[in-house]
Parts: sequence; C-alpha cells; structure tokens
Amino acid sequence: MSTVTSQLSISLDGYVAGPEQSLQDPLGRGGEQLHEWVYGLETWRAQHGLSGGERGVDAEVVDEMTRDVGAYVMGRRMFGGGDGPWDETWHGWWGEEPPFRTPVFVLTHQPREPLPMAGGTTFRFVTDGVHSALEQAREAAGDGKVAIAGGASTVRQYLAAGLLDTLQLHIVPVVLGGGERLLTGLDDLRLEQAAVVAGPTVTHVTYRVLR
Amino acid sequence: MSTVTSQLSISLDGYVAGPEQSLQDPLGRGGEQLHEWVYGLETWRAQHGLSGGERGVDAEVVDEMTRDVGAYVMGRRMFGGGDGPWDETWHGWWGEEPPFRTPVFVLTHQPREPLPMAGGTTFRFVTDGVHSALEQAREAAGDGKVAIAGGASTVRQYLAAGLLDTLQLHIVPVVLGGGERLLTGLDDLRLEQAAVVAGPTVTHVTYRVLR
Repeated sequence: MSTVTSQLSISLDGYVAGPEQSLQDPLGRGGEQLHEWVYGLETWRAQHGLSGGERGVDAEVVDEMTRDVGAYVMGRRMFGGGDGPWDETWHGWWGEEPPFRTPVFVLTHQPREPLPMAGGTTFRFVTDGVHSALEQAREAAGDGKVAIAGGASTVRQYLAAGLLDTLQLHIVPVVLGGGERLLTGLDDLRLEQAAVVAGPTVTHVTYRVLR
Repeated sequence: MSTVTSQLSISLDGYVAGPEQSLQDPLGRGGEQLHEWVYGLETWRAQHGLSGGERGVDAEVVDEMTRDVGAYVMGRRMFGGGDGPWDETWHGWWGEEPPFRTPVFVLTHQPREPLPMAGGTTFRFVTDGVHSALEQAREAAGDGKVAIAGGASTVRQYLAAGLLDTLQLHIVPVVLGGGERLLTGLDDLRLEQAAVVAGPTVTHVTYRVLR
C-alpha cells in the first residue's frame, strides 16, 4: 500500500504558522520566515515554472519529498477561496498550472465537480472525510506515495487517526512566539527518528510514526 | 572572552520538561524521555563515576559539550534543596563527587558559604543576579567556556539578557503535550544554525545567538 507522508516547516518553538492568521495572511505574523529556505531552490522554482535557482542539500530534500508522489490530500483552507459554498471561479492559489501534477483531493463540506488544470493537476473535492479522501488518494496514487499537503490541522487529523507513515519536519531557527502549533492534542503520538539531513540554514528530520 | 553556551534536550512540541513538574518530579510527566538518549553513554557514565557504556555519535556530543567548560552557572531549582533559607545538609543532587569538576555558580536569593566537593567541584552561591553570576563564572573559567547548566528558566534569562553565545538543542522525538517551554517570551530572539549532528535517536543542533 502507498506510503502516506507529510512535511512541514516548523519553528523552534513548535509553530507551523505565526500569530494572527487570517484568510489574507494564512502564514500569520512572521510565518513567511518558515519557508524562506525553499523559495530560492532550483527544484522548487522548477515545480512552479520558474528557471534558475540554487542546487544543494535543500534542493535535494525538496526533490526527494515530491518525487514519486502519486496523489495529494489537502484541507480546504490550503486550497483557499474562503468558507461556505464555492465560488467556482476560485481555482486555488497556484495559477492555471499548479505544481502538483497529480490528482489533489481537497477536504471540504461543500460538493464541487472535479477541476482539471494544466500540467496534470486535477482538484477533486471530497465531502465524506479524511478516511475517504485517503482511500481515493491511495487508489489514484497507484504505486506512488500519498502526500498530505497541509495545512497543519489536516496533517494533525491524519496523525490523530493513525494514518500517517512518515512526518518530515524542516526545523527552522526562528521563534514565532505564538500561532498555530502542529503537535497539539496528540499526546499518544509515538515517533522514531528515521533520517536527518543538515541543510545550510535548517535541519530536515524525517520521523516514522509508530503504531 | 569565554564563550557562553547552553544545551538542553527538547521535545518535538517544544517542551524541556513535562506537565505537573514538582520538587519531587522536576522533569514532569514523561519528561524523563527527554534524557534517555544520554544515560547509556560511556562519556556520561564516566562523568558520573560509572564504567562501561556506549560509544558513538551521541557520546561524542556529550564529550564535546563538557570539554573545555571552565565554570557552570545554574538556577537554584536545578541545585535543589527546596525554597527559602538553606538546609546546609543539602549538597545538591549529585552525591559527594558531582560531575562538574569546576566552580559552579548557583543563582539564589539566600546567601550561603562556598561548598567545596570531592573531584574539583565547588558550589558558589550568587545572590546578586544573572549578570554577576556570569561575570564570576567568566573569571573562574579563564580560557574555558562558561556553561549555563539550567534549568530552563535560567537559560531563558540568559537568552533574554543577550548573554548566551550558543544554544545546543537535542531534539527528541517525543510529544509531551504540555509542561515547561524553553522558547517563550523571547520573540526577539534571532538564531542561526551552526552545526547539526545526527545521533541514532535524536538530532543535536547548535545555534548561534545573533545580536
């Protein structure tokens, strides 16, 4: 069966977004610092249709985490477009050619027809919960991995349900002082360190989730 | 001038001690899991007068973090013996031959005569604050490092005062769900990753504190 993985950038004080998150500012105050390590990388830029960028350890980490992903699952807030019934003109944050290039299952309470995009991404909207979304993603992924793309509350739901196999954290040396915590309400969670990669500015640690 | 360093084991959710800390249980519920990586190591055992133990990456980390330390500073709670006026029969948690083997400056509001112990450790009690304790420790350390031994609130005070040069975190894959947070009230703290060592079960990351 497909491996189910997730990866997030996390501050040293345990936050995956800063304080005062809003629809306009989903990363919260200071939260963009969590992702600065990724924007200049060649692999990230290539996935987003941009040329150039840095190679190196971090680029390999990004390459590795997207390689062999056969389907993604994400929460509605990560897909965006606000709450309530769909504004059908909203096609996600990523323009007409999103970087996923696979089926992407979006968790939502509002039904919507599948939304095929350029470059191989199709957004499919799942209204019957995390187990169903994962089942559909596994089927779509075939031999590939299923990646839980985010946000944090979606990752937390999969962790809580015991459905995640590996969790990769990019540990960023910033202190946000508040915001959205990843590992909360998960006291029974048991993890085991599986791999460590030292980037130039952040540390990438992959954990196996024990059952 | 002496480098001022500190090192702590921290959970993935940012705690350096578990919930329900008390004088009897200073590590809090589950907190002992933060330190399991260290107890079997040859270097740790040797420092505590025990023979045998494991060698390897973690042992080298422990060796490195105690090498060249010329003086320690610790909070009263780490030294122990309860609050209020001293019970002069209390000589710390470490028996008659403590592992420090240097002067150790204990922050306290209660004056007490210096307490020389076997093996080179002398506990000195400082009643005029963190700056004074550090100044005395620097003088005692000579060319050696000054290590802020703990507990977390003492390390936090030195971080807040801008007096720490490096902070090493041993990132342990446990989730404590509550307890004592290290990096709280330190929103202005700026850190830079300096070194990463992957142990078999935990990751050791050294951060430079930027000013």
